[in-house]
Amino acid sequence: MRNVVVIGVGMTKFGKFPEMTVEQLGRVAAWEAIKDAGMSPKDIQVVYLGNLTERRETGHISCVAQEILRGVGIRGIPVTRVENACASGSTAFREAWMAVGCGLYDIALAGGVEKLTGMGPAPLARIGDTIEGIAGFSPPGVWAMRAQRHMAQYGTTLEQLAKVAVKNRKHGTLNPRAHYPKEVTVEEVRNSPMICYPLTLLDSCPTTDGGAAAVICSEEVAKRYTTKPIYVAATVLKSGTYENLRNIAVNEIEQRAAKEAYERAGIGPEDLDFAEVHDCFTIAEIVRIENLGFCNEGEGGRMAEEGVTALGGKLPVNPSGGLLCKGHPVGATGVAQVAELCWQLRGEAGARQVQGAQVGLAHCSGGFIGHDTGASTVIILRR
Amino acid sequence: MRNVVVIGVGMTKFGKFPEMTVEQLGRVAAWEAIKDAGMSPKDIQVVYLGNLTERRETGHISCVAQEILRGVGIRGIPVTRVENACASGSTAFREAWMAVGCGLYDIALAGGVEKLTGMGPAPLARIGDTIEGIAGFSPPGVWAMRAQRHMAQYGTTLEQLAKVAVKNRKHGTLNPRAHYPKEVTVEEVRNSPMICYPLTLLDSCPTTDGGAAAVICSEEVAKRYTTKPIYVAATVLKSGTYENLRNIAVNEIEQRAAKEAYERAGIGPEDLDFAEVHDCFTIAEIVRIENLGFCNEGEGGRMAEEGVTALGGKLPVNPSGGLLCKGHPVGATGVAQVAELCWQLRGEAGARQVQGAQVGLAHCSGGFIGHDTGASTVIILRR
Repeated sequence: MRNVVVIGVGMTKFGKFPEMTVEQLGRVAAWEAIKDAGMSPKDIQVVYLGNLTERRETGHISCVAQEILRGVGIRGIPVTRVENACASGSTAFREAWMAVGCGLYDIALAGGVEKLTGMGPAPLARIGDTIEGIAGFSPPGVWAMRAQRHMAQYGTTLEQLAKVAVKNRKHGTLNPRAHYPKEVTVEEVRNSPMICYPLTLLDSCPTTDGGAAAVICSEEVAKRYTTKPIYVAATVLKSGTYENLRNIAVNEIEQRAAKEAYERAGIGPEDLDFAEVHDCFTIAEIVRIENLGFCNEGEGGRMAEEGVTALGGKLPVNPSGGLLCKGHPVGATGVAQVAELCWQLRGEAGARQVQGAQVGLAHCSGGFIGHDTGASTVIILRR
Repeated sequence: MRNVVVIGVGMTKFGKFPEMTVEQLGRVAAWEAIKDAGMSPKDIQVVYLGNLTERRETGHISCVAQEILRGVGIRGIPVTRVENACASGSTAFREAWMAVGCGLYDIALAGGVEKLTGMGPAPLARIGDTIEGIAGFSPPGVWAMRAQRHMAQYGTTLEQLAKVAVKNRKHGTLNPRAHYPKEVTVEEVRNSPMICYPLTLLDSCPTTDGGAAAVICSEEVAKRYTTKPIYVAATVLKSGTYENLRNIAVNEIEQRAAKEAYERAGIGPEDLDFAEVHDCFTIAEIVRIENLGFCNEGEGGRMAEEGVTALGGKLPVNPSGGLLCKGHPVGATGVAQVAELCWQLRGEAGARQVQGAQVGLAHCSGGFIGHDTGASTVIILRR
């Protein structure tokens, strides 16, 4: 596999856009990424799109990627939609990386898009087996159990949970593309409506529409377009093993994905300058920064409390605002993380810039989280 | 890209299986392919699954691939669902080919599965824009217009259309896995219920459940497992260009896919011993064998009439029975075609064996067929 770089990224503002179709959201992001790369749509040779719910609000099925690209002027080339639940976007990025890395193509577009507005209440409650969803084992239920286990086992506090939301929402106020760029206090988090004890509304990511895209190419081709290529140091995808169900506060799938990513990149977590981590709930960031090796097992709660993971701290986590504040349009999330990594590594992140950022990590996990199955991705990019 | 071979294939019987879940169908196919390869589930290093409708009959969304593999004992590895409408299975095969060909993995499983039973009437009517579907521009409507154009432009007859159904259903009687293995006459085809003039029920493929799988690996690794590797000579994916909408009887997307596949394989259509072609309707086989270069434009109707494309003819098309008789469980179709190619090329196709078969082609197209968009794949395998 030859070296692969990201040379253009784009992203819609995340939010609720009932007036826009999923195709329009995808096109806005694709256009921005192509322009950012200094390219024309005709330069794109292969496309992968991460998307879970297609155009289900209209009943349409199949080939949403081609419909998006038709409006951008990309046509004729290989186009594939990939799905791995909440890791769909990062899976699309990985396929695009493989297609360029193996030499079959020089320039690829990785996109992700989701239109959750219009799908009725709790559109993602059906991730997981239906019967478990009916029984309450939907994502909030699973994560509430994880939170309770984490609190019982490691002494994690309700205040520590809330401080993750406080931190990420503060970061998000510095991101003009975030869905809910508004600071909150620990009291506001705890006093917001209870979803599933101990998780409140503000412990949870919102239901969001949005799109994101990245243009990636070979190191050689990049020289024609940019002086700021961002290198793909690792992009890893894993599925679950169902082996550590005795402690649902731990995700062994993420530990394995991170381990391989560090090996491939030739670095350790101590070398990271910042990370975007799949904080679908406050407890998710706590568990996952442990799984990713940012701290020891059980210490995740203290990281937000002590400011380690805040902008200006030792290892800022979710400078973009994360899923909690920026929003979580499923298929778009993994690619939006890549966009944030690139903006940070190019020094273009504005008020939320991590000073001197050289290496960043993006993490997504999705799927049937109750069984530790599904998919987990870890992407490491460097200047 | 190094040489890649298929060393094991599997397929459920195609039919209506209301008592089986989509996961069970997928598992039956995966198990057979792994056993056929002489492998253990632990040997599989990466999986791609083609699937369109997930488990929509139960309301479940996401990660159906991981759920299938959980029951087979495949876990921990990269797993990705891909979707390209009716070309989803062949797209999965192509991604698996790329993953092995580029050297990242030695052994991959490409699967395809679909459970259409339980999705209500006409589950595929929503392929295409919703408004066009409501207006009758669903697949039967589009193909009926194509048939009328082909009849007006080239003199294709209703009898020629019917003879495609007669041929493929006769082939299917020789295939114990076919959905409707029953011979029909031209009169029966014409007298079956009219779907959309001139296409009758027997001009159309049925609504079918089923799964298929293929184990592919590097040429080197194959030596440990088989003396009958089947080589992937080409696997091509294209999307539409919207350029030839003046004649909807022609699919330029398929012409381009075939052209590149022949170039990559270093052969022409005259070198093929047989082919599996996406005959979702009788007119589809006629149009597509023209697009694939098996005959000149406008001559497709005569090929079935003159027996050229029948078993025993110069270029047998759909010896398996094709979509018309074997059935069309969307995501499974492209991988089932690969299975048929392998059985034929290994001389294991029983009563439907194409004698001395050395090279076979499989073709799928899917998506928003009204705009010549969507996806088209051409796979060429050789002994």
